[in-house]
Amino acid sequence: MSNATYDVLGIGNAIVDVLASAEDHFLARHGLAKGAMQLIDSDEAERLYLAMGAGVEASGGSAANTIAGVASLGGKTAFVGKVKRDQLGEIFAHDVRALGVHFDTPMADDGPPTARCLILVTPDAQRTMNTYLGACVTLGPSDVSPDLVRAAKVTYLEGYLWDPPAAKEAFRAASRIAHEASREVALTLSDAFCVDRYRAEFRDLVATSIDLLFANENEICSLYEVDTFDEALQHLRGGRALAALTRSEKGSVIVSGDDVHVIDPAPASKLVDTTGAGDQYAAGFLYGYTHGYDLPSCGRLGGVAAAEVISHYGARPATSLRDLARANGFPR
Amino acid sequence: MSNATYDVLGIGNAIVDVLASAEDHFLARHGLAKGAMQLIDSDEAERLYLAMGAGVEASGGSAANTIAGVASLGGKTAFVGKVKRDQLGEIFAHDVRALGVHFDTPMADDGPPTARCLILVTPDAQRTMNTYLGACVTLGPSDVSPDLVRAAKVTYLEGYLWDPPAAKEAFRAASRIAHEASREVALTLSDAFCVDRYRAEFRDLVATSIDLLFANENEICSLYEVDTFDEALQHLRGGRALAALTRSEKGSVIVSGDDVHVIDPAPASKLVDTTGAGDQYAAGFLYGYTHGYDLPSCGRLGGVAAAEVISHYGARPATSLRDLARANGFPR
Repeated sequence: MSNATYDVLGIGNAIVDVLASAEDHFLARHGLAKGAMQLIDSDEAERLYLAMGAGVEASGGSAANTIAGVASLGGKTAFVGKVKRDQLGEIFAHDVRALGVHFDTPMADDGPPTARCLILVTPDAQRTMNTYLGACVTLGPSDVSPDLVRAAKVTYLEGYLWDPPAAKEAFRAASRIAHEASREVALTLSDAFCVDRYRAEFRDLVATSIDLLFANENEICSLYEVDTFDEALQHLRGGRALAALTRSEKGSVIVSGDDVHVIDPAPASKLVDTTGAGDQYAAGFLYGYTHGYDLPSCGRLGGVAAAEVISHYGARPATSLRDLARANGFPR
Repeated sequence: MSNATYDVLGIGNAIVDVLASAEDHFLARHGLAKGAMQLIDSDEAERLYLAMGAGVEASGGSAANTIAGVASLGGKTAFVGKVKRDQLGEIFAHDVRALGVHFDTPMADDGPPTARCLILVTPDAQRTMNTYLGACVTLGPSDVSPDLVRAAKVTYLEGYLWDPPAAKEAFRAASRIAHEASREVALTLSDAFCVDRYRAEFRDLVATSIDLLFANENEICSLYEVDTFDEALQHLRGGRALAALTRSEKGSVIVSGDDVHVIDPAPASKLVDTTGAGDQYAAGFLYGYTHGYDLPSCGRLGGVAAAEVISHYGARPATSLRDLARANGFPR
């Protein structure tokens, strides 16, 4: 993985999060499945926003959060995603660039506004996400620069890209270019409901063209339609993809060929908001992976990054992950 | 103070905050006076935003923060302030209404965008504010509904209203209407540099038409051009205005006629970001004041609200101040 300008290139939906506290009965009243991500249209977004409490806005998007985490660890990163040239789009672009991430996807000058995700955080620290895709639906293959893909050790793609119609073509194009350049392709399954929507395609991807797979327990069980994590593991063992599977407070499990590594969770100082936990696990793992760490160390660094992000409101690190990694003995 | 629909009506600049961490050398390099508020134009705002780190956006504005705090305590509130009909304006309007605050100032359909304040939080938890006034410059007397002013026990005005040219006329109009209806008028001096810009006018206001004055130590010393807090006190004693003066970790002092009440600070769990401390002190004080608390209790409730807001990032309460007040034995 030498001669790469970037450690990780992320491609994903470019979203601004709107985070607000909510009680369980609010979710029930609005028919929202706790812990999941559901897509909403512009009318639903307006209705839900009107009903929810005062919020805090921050740049989000699953792959973008991961890239922010890799950048915070000191990795060299780039991101591809579509915003509109509006105030939220300017915020998204500013925030990702302020982290040193290369970001030059052209902003849309017309069409729907920048995407937003209305995130309701319940007292149990669970986040329930409601995404209005907005300008993300205009991301297409022409937004993926082949040179950018070739310049990255790993191209990291989010399963959510299957939701906006043209983005999956961008996904496929990036994957092809990466492999032609002997680069690696990583995928996060994103969400169990997302897996449910695109199960056949995701299974095919994992079997044929993904080098590195990220998923949590629900997502991987949904992918293989099994009831237990152990059954899911059997589907992955001996497969093409290296898989890093997160299990919340149980830590993570890495499957590499026939090998299975069980990784303890990092101690979490407190649990405030789980938004971004999976994204930051992927960030730590990818930083380690692109810097030659052994697999258990990749998983442990993922755990350290995830523990940071769940200790506060919001999906991106609130402190330097590089300093935090050093304080936790990385590199080791 | 009976027969009032609202406990407090706030009139102020309607601003969305952009909060980011910064090191001291960043302030030095950009010539920013730590702890102060400076006005910046659109070009400076763009330049500073480009240079600063990734941010978090949240509704702000001094008087609006205070009104949010009074609402969080369970008070009946209204707010007058000007945003543009753009994404940040929608966020501001949503957030203030989500708290139950009556807000119906017409949004500007053209002209400059919604105001924003670029807030740099240094590791010592100090905040340095850089305000682009945007649409606030179009607030004028016609935005102040006489019925709204008459319906509020206290009309609370921020000194920052002296910055946008037409807003001071709105301020004067509101003050006149309130007094004609035998209501009270409160003023916060906002910022020592703001006092410096409008000292003569503020002194005149305090001497002739303000019933309730909020200021911190720097601001009140600047108002009377004295070096010590005790000298400032002498200027206030026996005056028209009841004064509530905040002194950071030294608590607050209330001057009522010839009486001086010294109020201990509330214990602060931690100090993360001082943004909004003065605003929330005013919120607690005003809630108590409009609910018949004795003056020391007003000051103590102000201290409780201020202690909450400095324990986290952002200028508005992150938890229910009503619950917090109860936990601290209010009402007493």
